[in-house]
Amino acid sequence: MAKPKKTPRPKAQTPKGFRDYFGAEVTERKAMLDKIAEVYHLYGFDPLETSAVETVEALGKFLPDVDRPNEGVFAWQEDDADWLALRYDLTAPLARVAAQYRNDLPSPYRRYAMGPVWRNEKPGPGRFRQFYQCDADTVGAPSVAADAEVCAMLATALEAVGIPRGDYIVRINNRKVLNGVMEAAGLAGDENATARGIVLRAIDKLDRLGPEGVRALLGTGRKDESGDFTDGAGLSDAQAERIMAFMAAKGESGAETCAALADLVVGSQAGTDGVAELQTMAKLLEAQGFGPDRIVIDPSVVRGLGYYTGPVFEAELTFEVQNDKGQTVQFGSVAGGGRYDDLVKRFTGQAVPATGVSIGVDRLLAALRAKGQAQAAAPGPVIVTVMDRERIADYQAMVGTLRGAGIRAELYLGNPKNFGNQLKYADKRAAPVAVIQGSDEAARGVVQIKDLVLGAQIAESASLDEWKSQPAQREVPVADLVAEVQAILARGA
Amino acid sequence: MAKPKKTPRPKAQTPKGFRDYFGAEVTERKAMLDKIAEVYHLYGFDPLETSAVETVEALGKFLPDVDRPNEGVFAWQEDDADWLALRYDLTAPLARVAAQYRNDLPSPYRRYAMGPVWRNEKPGPGRFRQFYQCDADTVGAPSVAADAEVCAMLATALEAVGIPRGDYIVRINNRKVLNGVMEAAGLAGDENATARGIVLRAIDKLDRLGPEGVRALLGTGRKDESGDFTDGAGLSDAQAERIMAFMAAKGESGAETCAALADLVVGSQAGTDGVAELQTMAKLLEAQGFGPDRIVIDPSVVRGLGYYTGPVFEAELTFEVQNDKGQTVQFGSVAGGGRYDDLVKRFTGQAVPATGVSIGVDRLLAALRAKGQAQAAAPGPVIVTVMDRERIADYQAMVGTLRGAGIRAELYLGNPKNFGNQLKYADKRAAPVAVIQGSDEAARGVVQIKDLVLGAQIAESASLDEWKSQPAQREVPVADLVAEVQAILARGA
Repeated sequence: MAKPKKTPRPKAQTPKGFRDYFGAEVTERKAMLDKIAEVYHLYGFDPLETSAVETVEALGKFLPDVDRPNEGVFAWQEDDADWLALRYDLTAPLARVAAQYRNDLPSPYRRYAMGPVWRNEKPGPGRFRQFYQCDADTVGAPSVAADAEVCAMLATALEAVGIPRGDYIVRINNRKVLNGVMEAAGLAGDENATARGIVLRAIDKLDRLGPEGVRALLGTGRKDESGDFTDGAGLSDAQAERIMAFMAAKGESGAETCAALADLVVGSQAGTDGVAELQTMAKLLEAQGFGPDRIVIDPSVVRGLGYYTGPVFEAELTFEVQNDKGQTVQFGSVAGGGRYDDLVKRFTGQAVPATGVSIGVDRLLAALRAKGQAQAAAPGPVIVTVMDRERIADYQAMVGTLRGAGIRAELYLGNPKNFGNQLKYADKRAAPVAVIQGSDEAARGVVQIKDLVLGAQIAESASLDEWKSQPAQREVPVADLVAEVQAILARGA
Repeated sequence: MAKPKKTPRPKAQTPKGFRDYFGAEVTERKAMLDKIAEVYHLYGFDPLETSAVETVEALGKFLPDVDRPNEGVFAWQEDDADWLALRYDLTAPLARVAAQYRNDLPSPYRRYAMGPVWRNEKPGPGRFRQFYQCDADTVGAPSVAADAEVCAMLATALEAVGIPRGDYIVRINNRKVLNGVMEAAGLAGDENATARGIVLRAIDKLDRLGPEGVRALLGTGRKDESGDFTDGAGLSDAQAERIMAFMAAKGESGAETCAALADLVVGSQAGTDGVAELQTMAKLLEAQGFGPDRIVIDPSVVRGLGYYTGPVFEAELTFEVQNDKGQTVQFGSVAGGGRYDDLVKRFTGQAVPATGVSIGVDRLLAALRAKGQAQAAAPGPVIVTVMDRERIADYQAMVGTLRGAGIRAELYLGNPKNFGNQLKYADKRAAPVAVIQGSDEAARGVVQIKDLVLGAQIAESASLDEWKSQPAQREVPVADLVAEVQAILARGA
């Protein structure tokens, strides 16, 4: 037998497309999600946490990115031949739960869910294969009152996390209106399904392509900057103009918009129903105090996903930021959703009406950072340094006293030999204060307290005399340790 | 071509060994973890959230349950031949992070992590393949001051979540002492590795088997109730007695215990070092105010895992509960940990000292429930019922008013036709209050407010006259809605 090879060392690396979150990255997101959960709770929604793993059969195949292995999900086979997979969103597990527990859950069932989802996509810059979603859905409520409530809750949640009124807008529309416009334009029937799909995707690209780009896609097609050609829907000029009129139907008020839409769907029952639903939603929202300064009817919102069947909505942040190219642009979409009445039916055969919203957690967090509204990084701990290795118990007692007073504190636990390393550590930890006690100070019952924030300021700007006077370091009796540290922390706060 | 078969409906089921968490199950756990995180933060630990997915190579093979496919982990192969897996604990990812970011992290690095882990184990009653862990570790601190700090933090965390002092005990020991006892008993050397392993596992079973059972395993072996025979370590009587004396070495005080242990390890340098480490830990803990009423030296704690190299510890809840058989027993272990100095070395080749603790989240939550200390279930929402379908906007406005006052409230969103269904829904939602307004009340500008908690009490006990007087239902002006609901909620609180 050959001599067994020495096992090479494993690589210390996150798998491609995955990442780690450290310190403030974790606490910022948690603070934001906690505030959103409070709003969801106020609105009567209950938390649900499903497992990360589902059967492939229960998950179904709803991801648009189907050219990847396992159609975009991470999947594996069990011994006994069941295929399991990591959930790719929070809606598919909800549909499974709504079917599995249909006799036990209240109906309607309002639930929220927050957690990671996984996509087996090609990783790219800023594109990860595990990311957070934050969803709220109502299952079993056929009325658009449920859709209106979700939109109101979304607006409330955005304000709760720190997006001021005026910096966001929730835009609502209804798939039935678009279907009605297409029906009125003579695009009903199975033979026009492909054309309708192209129309839907073209409208969804309005932001990116502008009206001319969309118009081209409604007609013969469009050549992009790289020279690639995208086939158009092949609509006649009259048909295309009706679609263009639909997208531009937004008027000064909801009533005006609805009137314009009503004209465009004449002859289509679905379209007329859709306009009526929009009017009802507007009325219900107004009754709850949500006027068009926060939630507005906007026919240009269609949402790309195929499974929506009625109202669709989107929250857009309207304040301006610099994009990668240095251009000033609006921040853009951070949440979206709509009514999907057929997902539970997959399991039970019975239609169960459902509507909900999903907040893009990373996008919203980026927006809060851009607005300076993300929770500030937690302060670093007070560091008690080690001058005499034999007196560690004394230093540990000081740490215990500080912690007992509710002050975040640490003993330096590295090798104490080099005092410079202890101060470097304090710097890396963003420590506001270092506590120092040599044998001389111990004998006199005092400690040195070093204000590291002030010290850093002085180091940048002070004259030699100021520097020598060491205003950032004070000697105080051991009994005053807590009070003195509290005073310094209060100054920094 | 054969006619394509109709796809059968998917089963609405969680995969075997997985479960869903609803409502209070989610919020109770979150409240407990939030309190623990606060303590960890106070002690200077920073949060870390690694991805659920790691390379199989980085995870390594440290699970005891190796007779399962993929050695107990859920794993799958990527297109490009990398094997990925779900993490089975939070320690292996920490070792990977400590190696990957070794030039950027502060050293020592104190971190905490909370989240699900996955085990590809045979599911059983109460045994799930996804469960939460809650860990805190210090990487890069060679001194047992780090171990003492983790034990103190564990005690503080238990009290913070609601386990009163006196109802728990943190027991500490040191692997070096056990190794020293075995060395002093003539069990050093590679030729005795198997015997030493049996001794370690036998001591770990002391709780379950009692001293006689352990003694049998130290000698020729033991036949259990089912008749199965477990091989013993084959120790001589003198050797076995020394091990038994080690387990029983706990004295009245830490000093007495250490003195007894010192006698048992005479001649072993490792053993003498271990006893000195225990003494140092006791001194450091005493200096922080953690006496033997909370943290005690107990030689019977050894911990089953092979990778511990020094101090080991375990938190046990000492209050009594009924077990499955109706017997009164102590609640038992809820957390454990120890020093493991070799896990990071796998990646870097350089030894990195590390120590930490893992709290069994489900066990601790069960303990809090047993003590009535788990966060009470959140109150259900106030339900505004729908008497007139045409006046939904009015009802929604009431809901908006209640929410605006910070009162959790809902509009009934099901089919309003059957009013009994609305009250059944309120019952299922544990609603404290129902608000009712028919056209008659609307015309008079009043609402009916039904105290559902009081109503349920009356339904159980009231006489017919009391029942008729309807004390649980009041008519109030619409303007008094919020004040009246607040008054009822305050009575229930």
